[in-house]
Amino acid sequence: MIEILPTLESPTQLRDMPLEKLQRVAQEIRQTLCDLLKERPAHFASNLGVVELCLALHTEFDFLKDRLIWDTGHQIYPQKLITGRYHRFHTIRTKGGLMGYPNPNESDYDLFVTGHAGSSVSTMVGLRSGDDLQGKTDNHSVAVIGDGAFPSGIVFEALNNAALLKSKMLVVLNDNEMSICPRVGGLARYLDRLRANPFYSGLKQEIVGVLNKLPVFGDPTERLLVQIKEGVKAGLHGGMLFEEFGFKYFGPIDGHDIALLKKYLRLVKSQEGPVLLHVITKKGHGFKPAAADPVLFHTPPVFQWVEGERVELKKGSAVAYTDIASKAIGDQMRRNPRVTVITAAMCQGNKLEPVREEFPDRFFDVGICESHAVAFAGGQAKTGMRPIVDIYSTFLQRSFDQIFQEVCLQGLPVVFMMDRAGMTAEDGPTHHGTYDLAYMRIFPNMIVMAPGDGFDLRGMLDFALQQNVATAIRYPKTTAVEINADRQPIELGKSEIMSWGRDGMLLAVGTELTHCMQAAAKLKDRGLDIGVINVRFVKPLDTVVMRQVLEQSPLVVTAEEGTLSGGFGSALLEFAAEQGLRADHVRRLGVPDRFVEHQSRAEVLHELRLDADGIAATVLELATQRGLLESGFQTA
Amino acid sequence: MIEILPTLESPTQLRDMPLEKLQRVAQEIRQTLCDLLKERPAHFASNLGVVELCLALHTEFDFLKDRLIWDTGHQIYPQKLITGRYHRFHTIRTKGGLMGYPNPNESDYDLFVTGHAGSSVSTMVGLRSGDDLQGKTDNHSVAVIGDGAFPSGIVFEALNNAALLKSKMLVVLNDNEMSICPRVGGLARYLDRLRANPFYSGLKQEIVGVLNKLPVFGDPTERLLVQIKEGVKAGLHGGMLFEEFGFKYFGPIDGHDIALLKKYLRLVKSQEGPVLLHVITKKGHGFKPAAADPVLFHTPPVFQWVEGERVELKKGSAVAYTDIASKAIGDQMRRNPRVTVITAAMCQGNKLEPVREEFPDRFFDVGICESHAVAFAGGQAKTGMRPIVDIYSTFLQRSFDQIFQEVCLQGLPVVFMMDRAGMTAEDGPTHHGTYDLAYMRIFPNMIVMAPGDGFDLRGMLDFALQQNVATAIRYPKTTAVEINADRQPIELGKSEIMSWGRDGMLLAVGTELTHCMQAAAKLKDRGLDIGVINVRFVKPLDTVVMRQVLEQSPLVVTAEEGTLSGGFGSALLEFAAEQGLRADHVRRLGVPDRFVEHQSRAEVLHELRLDADGIAATVLELATQRGLLESGFQTA
Repeated sequence: MIEILPTLESPTQLRDMPLEKLQRVAQEIRQTLCDLLKERPAHFASNLGVVELCLALHTEFDFLKDRLIWDTGHQIYPQKLITGRYHRFHTIRTKGGLMGYPNPNESDYDLFVTGHAGSSVSTMVGLRSGDDLQGKTDNHSVAVIGDGAFPSGIVFEALNNAALLKSKMLVVLNDNEMSICPRVGGLARYLDRLRANPFYSGLKQEIVGVLNKLPVFGDPTERLLVQIKEGVKAGLHGGMLFEEFGFKYFGPIDGHDIALLKKYLRLVKSQEGPVLLHVITKKGHGFKPAAADPVLFHTPPVFQWVEGERVELKKGSAVAYTDIASKAIGDQMRRNPRVTVITAAMCQGNKLEPVREEFPDRFFDVGICESHAVAFAGGQAKTGMRPIVDIYSTFLQRSFDQIFQEVCLQGLPVVFMMDRAGMTAEDGPTHHGTYDLAYMRIFPNMIVMAPGDGFDLRGMLDFALQQNVATAIRYPKTTAVEINADRQPIELGKSEIMSWGRDGMLLAVGTELTHCMQAAAKLKDRGLDIGVINVRFVKPLDTVVMRQVLEQSPLVVTAEEGTLSGGFGSALLEFAAEQGLRADHVRRLGVPDRFVEHQSRAEVLHELRLDADGIAATVLELATQRGLLESGFQTA
Repeated sequence: MIEILPTLESPTQLRDMPLEKLQRVAQEIRQTLCDLLKERPAHFASNLGVVELCLALHTEFDFLKDRLIWDTGHQIYPQKLITGRYHRFHTIRTKGGLMGYPNPNESDYDLFVTGHAGSSVSTMVGLRSGDDLQGKTDNHSVAVIGDGAFPSGIVFEALNNAALLKSKMLVVLNDNEMSICPRVGGLARYLDRLRANPFYSGLKQEIVGVLNKLPVFGDPTERLLVQIKEGVKAGLHGGMLFEEFGFKYFGPIDGHDIALLKKYLRLVKSQEGPVLLHVITKKGHGFKPAAADPVLFHTPPVFQWVEGERVELKKGSAVAYTDIASKAIGDQMRRNPRVTVITAAMCQGNKLEPVREEFPDRFFDVGICESHAVAFAGGQAKTGMRPIVDIYSTFLQRSFDQIFQEVCLQGLPVVFMMDRAGMTAEDGPTHHGTYDLAYMRIFPNMIVMAPGDGFDLRGMLDFALQQNVATAIRYPKTTAVEINADRQPIELGKSEIMSWGRDGMLLAVGTELTHCMQAAAKLKDRGLDIGVINVRFVKPLDTVVMRQVLEQSPLVVTAEEGTLSGGFGSALLEFAAEQGLRADHVRRLGVPDRFVEHQSRAEVLHELRLDADGIAATVLELATQRGLLESGFQTA
């Protein structure tokens, strides 16, 4: 029974609640999350993990005055439920409904739209600095960041800077031992050592033990030194790593104990200067199936909670581009011992678990460290290896400079597999892969491809691994298609002519190919003979075919799931102008100059006119404008 | 007298040299650097600082087999001098001569072209991993990184990852207490504490002291605990921060003592797993004027070494765009207490010292941490402040993702001052600001401007600080001009028509304005009436004027110091296609799809046809192609 949540209009109502009632609210939040997952996939385990932390924060602070940034943002659901959005909660991740990330347009409690990991500390430090400069020194600034996001370089940049400012700032390290997959790296091991130790008490015992064994005089200094050093290394020193950066360290404490959290939050509120509170939580806490498999339950498929610990997952059997990509990567690794694959904590999202199992030595999860991932790949490539960097399009933005300097400038053959390119739909603007075509093609020594179907994707990876410069392959988060036709193999800078049309041509980038072929079929019914080109290469362009299209076609429509500023359509126009060819008969479909809201993939493609209907309508409009339609022909 | 250097064909010759002779080589390297600076500006103090380190590395390792990456790369001069490039050294930073950064095209000893800070550790870890996978486990991998570059987030990402790989790797931390300006932040303080302590010996004394004062039994545990913790904090713990990440720490040692360096390099070579060697050097070491003022002597103007410690600097009096920008920033800060300025260790390069002195509270040097700088600015802007992020165009590439998420997506009014935009000439491809127009304009909620002269630059900053979305202003590293004419104030999306031409129009982006006006004058002598537009806004475009130009001009040439893939010219073509306007009479001048080598600014603009001659020639060619020239008119 959900009884309290519907009556919560503001988190101020939580402040005087007795502990039992707060625990009841926690239970209702968990119930609401489980109910949501009957309806649609959503971020789940991470939200279950922060329920108590969220409640404790909102009871001890007033985040209309104080500042709170949730790093990465997908764990914002509990906050939505206690800040007046319970009644709209069932709309989350649907068109026009609540966003699955913090959103200032929904509530003043959501300060920043966050979705990419690691920036919360920087933003929080900036908020603190801005408030200080305006004399608002009576409020608190808090960033909550997971241990998965913590190794992101920008976090260390922020810690380094925070020490300088000396102001009161709180970083809550939400340590659940997980990124989406289990966390990795030196910092992870460090946190493991810290966790072994309940807040200093262990240290005291250890020291007592050491002292008791020591003779008073003599030469034991050396030995003590070693023991102290090992003791410190063993995590008995209370977060020295953070203290080196100028932070006071508190913890680790149990992040599911509301009373304890409140006590510590009160304690750290009273401290001067930057403070780090280390909180231990469990992803999926309070719902056994999720706690047992937090990787699966990060964004699980829709499920029915059958009874007790059993859930029935409604898994689809459709093959996604990601499946094809991961299988193709495995095939290449089997064939060529020089091929490696590098992921930035997205082993699960990129479906690389089988590759990880089969080739543990050539699989590299570097954590949420995209910049390092690319420079690391550059180093590997220099030795003659063939690294594949498999990162979501939007997250690869973190590596823009390393793609420039460590890969393209060196002329190294790193392969970029840009998953989730184009519209990722329900996640919204932080996660759409909108900009990759525009920014990848600006670098010399880079080949940019988009597969029209599964056949292309496999062929492009094979092609990429034979090139001696960098290559990028971008594909969306959607069910893969296989186009049954006589197909051309992948050749550098060659597009594939699916059909030639007397009345006009559609230039399809990547998976727009299917929509363009459907549009051409629709237009045939309207009496128009429209051909379709599978562009394949955004760079280098197929200049022979592009020239033919520009010169011979009465109308040309380009379709790409990406920004209209500098994307494939622009590349075509650049080529036309270079060659002195007319392009006033070209119309470009893609993402206009605004951020695109969350909605289903069908909805977003419809909104952007990137579905068959939109493409067909665009052709008809253009045909009308250019007087290509016979009189009497109806465009409506 | 330079006697040994001319005879050095390979660093293997250094291996058996007695210490005195190596010291003599060090002296000759310093002399050669001083001689170079009589000829032309070059990176200086940083090179003086690593002479002994470079010699010691090359005597103890064989970097044809072992791997060496110099972070940031501007301290590569000593390596060039001892790896067979002494005789070409006088050509450094000139067209066709040696590059001022490592360059694999010059020597197998230069592995990567580096110029942006912080990636060396990642690259080195990648090299190690690649060699390991191919069974080459008998070689060493070394990265040399300065303490200024060390806080770059990517360094921590690399340290975090290195621990996982467990292989033998050496990071040499070249600690000279400086970025280009004095380093800042928590890590800087940490290193200061480490420096206070000569390699562990202090720790032993301290512990002995503590023990001597302790009773054997009783309750002193608490006190000891406190003392140990303070001891650790005081830097007596031997680089625990690095050890937390899984590195063995050695040092700090004197980086100007060749014998000591060699001893420690031999020691760390024998260690398993990742090792960090902390070396203390002095920027400008061995040349007193430079050691006394390493900021000035980072890239000093040409100087004569008069006698002893006196040098005569040949400083120009020309006003650069950077001077105008820093003065304008100061003026705005004086006027508006909400204006802040954020630099990423480029206080000197951006000439912000006066601002730092006058407004210490509103000046933020965050260190070489561009990603943090931008997210931090987003936080400040959210509180109502008006942050100006003043970063070189090429280094701002590090913030691509934060510009997207923390600024544009939030719709926050951060002002980006992109200094060194366009061709930075002698520094070469790592430092040219080639891509900013293309990547800045792809983000919604972003206004992109380029000033035609000093008047524009001042006006654009004033305009920017009144906008409620993000703005970017890009200007090159060159002497500023002031165009004396009736000038229009800066208005959103309005270009400035300098003249209207019957025969064609030049669309000038930023400081190409001067070159376009000169070209128009030249063309007038050839009988062509060519007008000039000061574009000012790359985004949003002045659609009224652009339409007029496209519709009315027989020919149009765009000129921009930036990539032709997706820059202003592309924006114009996109507008034309959207509007169904012809653009086959448009030619775009800019940076083609290749990396542009180092050379003087005049040379690079000439090569790219971005000087008056190149623009005029382009107009003549286009006029000929389009049949606009009267018969008998000579284009040659």
